[in-house]
Amino acid sequence: MEQKNKTVSPTKRLRCIVKLGGAAITCKNKLETIDEENLKEVSSHLRQAFVPDSTSANVLGMDWSKRQGQSEAPSFINDFSDQPVADSESFVVVHGAGSFGHFQASKSGVHKGGLSRPLVKAGFVATRISVTSLNLEIVKALAREGIPSIGMSPFSCGWSTCQRNMTEADISMVIKAIDTGFVPVLHGDAVLDTLQECTILSGDVIIRHLAAELKPEFVVFLTDVLGVYDRPPVESGAVLIREIAVHEDGSWSVVKPKLEDTIEFTVASHDTTGGMVTKITEAAMIAKLGIDVYITKAGTDHSVKALSGILKGGIPDDWLGTAIRYMR
Amino acid sequence: MEQKNKTVSPTKRLRCIVKLGGAAITCKNKLETIDEENLKEVSSHLRQAFVPDSTSANVLGMDWSKRQGQSEAPSFINDFSDQPVADSESFVVVHGAGSFGHFQASKSGVHKGGLSRPLVKAGFVATRISVTSLNLEIVKALAREGIPSIGMSPFSCGWSTCQRNMTEADISMVIKAIDTGFVPVLHGDAVLDTLQECTILSGDVIIRHLAAELKPEFVVFLTDVLGVYDRPPVESGAVLIREIAVHEDGSWSVVKPKLEDTIEFTVASHDTTGGMVTKITEAAMIAKLGIDVYITKAGTDHSVKALSGILKGGIPDDWLGTAIRYMR
Repeated sequence: MEQKNKTVSPTKRLRCIVKLGGAAITCKNKLETIDEENLKEVSSHLRQAFVPDSTSANVLGMDWSKRQGQSEAPSFINDFSDQPVADSESFVVVHGAGSFGHFQASKSGVHKGGLSRPLVKAGFVATRISVTSLNLEIVKALAREGIPSIGMSPFSCGWSTCQRNMTEADISMVIKAIDTGFVPVLHGDAVLDTLQECTILSGDVIIRHLAAELKPEFVVFLTDVLGVYDRPPVESGAVLIREIAVHEDGSWSVVKPKLEDTIEFTVASHDTTGGMVTKITEAAMIAKLGIDVYITKAGTDHSVKALSGILKGGIPDDWLGTAIRYMR
Repeated sequence: MEQKNKTVSPTKRLRCIVKLGGAAITCKNKLETIDEENLKEVSSHLRQAFVPDSTSANVLGMDWSKRQGQSEAPSFINDFSDQPVADSESFVVVHGAGSFGHFQASKSGVHKGGLSRPLVKAGFVATRISVTSLNLEIVKALAREGIPSIGMSPFSCGWSTCQRNMTEADISMVIKAIDTGFVPVLHGDAVLDTLQECTILSGDVIIRHLAAELKPEFVVFLTDVLGVYDRPPVESGAVLIREIAVHEDGSWSVVKPKLEDTIEFTVASHDTTGGMVTKITEAAMIAKLGIDVYITKAGTDHSVKALSGILKGGIPDDWLGTAIRYMR
C-alpha cells in the first residue's frame, strides 16, 4: 500500500483507537435509526475511560444545540468554571455505518465506481449525507458527555483510493486535532478513487491505517456481540474465542479456550456472522504491529475494562471478549 | 498572506462561487432555525442556474434520507434512468452561520483563542456541531434539487490560521471535488490558529481565498436585503447602490446611481447594517482580480439573473442589486 503522507508525528502517544461498530449504535433493521440508549451508554463509558476525574454529575457538556422542543440553548452553559482542566487522554473514534449509508451505497453501487452514471453519482451524494448525519449524532453524543469530539470526514480530509486501496491519507489534521486536545471522530465514507472514480472506504481500513501511523497503546472494537465465536453466535454450542495469538508470519491461532476440535472459520460463517474472518484478519494486521486488539460488546462492563487498558497486564478470567495479541 | 498550497489547478474554469448569507437561509432571531422556505427557493434557483435542462419535474433527488415520519427511503430512487447525463456547471457554495454557531462562538469567545480554558474548548466543539448541522441541512436541500452537493468543513480540510489570518488552506480536495462534477459546500468554521490556538474563519474570508485561487467567472452574494445601501436600509430615503467601480489602487467609488451628495459610509452604518463597509471592502478585493461580484436578495428574480451570469454583459435597469466591478 503506497502512502503519500506528510511526516507529522503526534507529540504525545495516542492511548487508544476505538471502533464503534455500526451494529452497536444503530438499529440494524430500521433505516437510519440510532440506538439512542446504546449510544448514550457507550459515550458514558468512553468518558469514564478517558476523561480523568469525570463523573456523570460534573460533566461539562459540549453540545450546546437547542434541544428538541426548546427554543433556547441549554442553561448548563452558564455553569462553566473557567479554570484550566486536565486534558482527557488522547483517543480517536472511528465508527461504522450500521443502518446509515449502507442502503444508499448498495442501492447505487458506489463501491464499484463509475461517477458518470447518474445513479452512482446520486448514490455517492446520498451515502455521504447519510454517514455524515450519523457522524454528527455521534459527535453530539460524545460532546454531551464532555468529550471534546470533532467530526472529520475522510472525504474532506482528502483521503482517496486507487482501485479501492488507500493511496492518499494525509493524517496531519488528525494529529493536530489530537495534539490540541480534541478527539477526532472519523467514519467509513464515500471517497474518490483514481482508477474507478469512486468507492467506499470502510471504517476497518481507516482503523488499520491510523493504527499503523499513530501506534496507539491498544485498539478496541465495540460490537453488538461479545466477540469472535467459532461459528455464528446464534447457533447452539457457539464458543467465544477468548484469545488469539498472531505470529510473526501474520498467521494466527486460537490460544484460549483450548478447543478439542480444530476451529474452522468457513466462508459460510464469514457470511452469516458479518465477516468474522475478515474481522480477525484486520485485527491480526494491527496486532502484528505490537498493538493489542480487544473485541467486545458495546455498553457492557467488559467494554469498560477493555477501554481502561487494564487488559494489557493480562486477561482476567471473567472478562468476556476476544483479545488478539502478537506473540513473539 | 502567506499560503502553503499544493499546486493543483482545476481542469475546467469554475463558473461561480455563491455565498449564501446566514441571514438569508436561517431565522435571524430564532436559535438554530432554518428558514426552510427560503432555503428551498434558493436551492431551486441554484438548480435552474447551474443544472442544464433541469425542471422541477425531472429533478433526480440525491438526498435519500428517510423523511420525517417515514420508515422507508423515498420511492423516487427507483426512477433513476441510468443514462449518463451532462454535468452541471461547476460552482462552489459557501454559507454563513446565521442563527447557527454565532451564539456558541460569542458565548465562549472562540475567536479570541485560548483552548486551555474549558469554556473556549467546549465552545469550539459546540460551534463546530452547530455549523456542521447547518451545513448538512444545506447539502440536503441542494441534493433534493439534484445538485451533487458535498459538504466540506474547513477544519477537516486542514485549513488553519495564524493570528486569525489564513495560513494553511489546501484547496486540492475542493478542486478534485469540482473536477469530478461535485459541488463543494463550505462554511464558516472554528479552526486551529498557530498563535492563539483557535479562532473563527468566516465565510467571507473563505470566499475571498477561493476566488483568488479558483478564479471563477463571477461571484454572487445572496443576502436578506437587495444589496448595499448608502445608509441602513430601514432608514427612510435609503438608496440602493447599483454599481460600484473598483480602481487599480483598490479604492472604490459609486458609479450608479449618480447621487447628489457624496456617499459616506460611516462606522455607524457599518455597525447597523451588518458590516456594509466590510462587505464592500471584501467584494472590492475580489473584483480587483477581474471577477465581477453581484450582491442581491436571495430567493428573488434578481438572484436568478445574477446566478445566470447574464449580468456580465451589462446590468439591466430593472435588475435590483449591487454590482461591484473592476474598472481599468
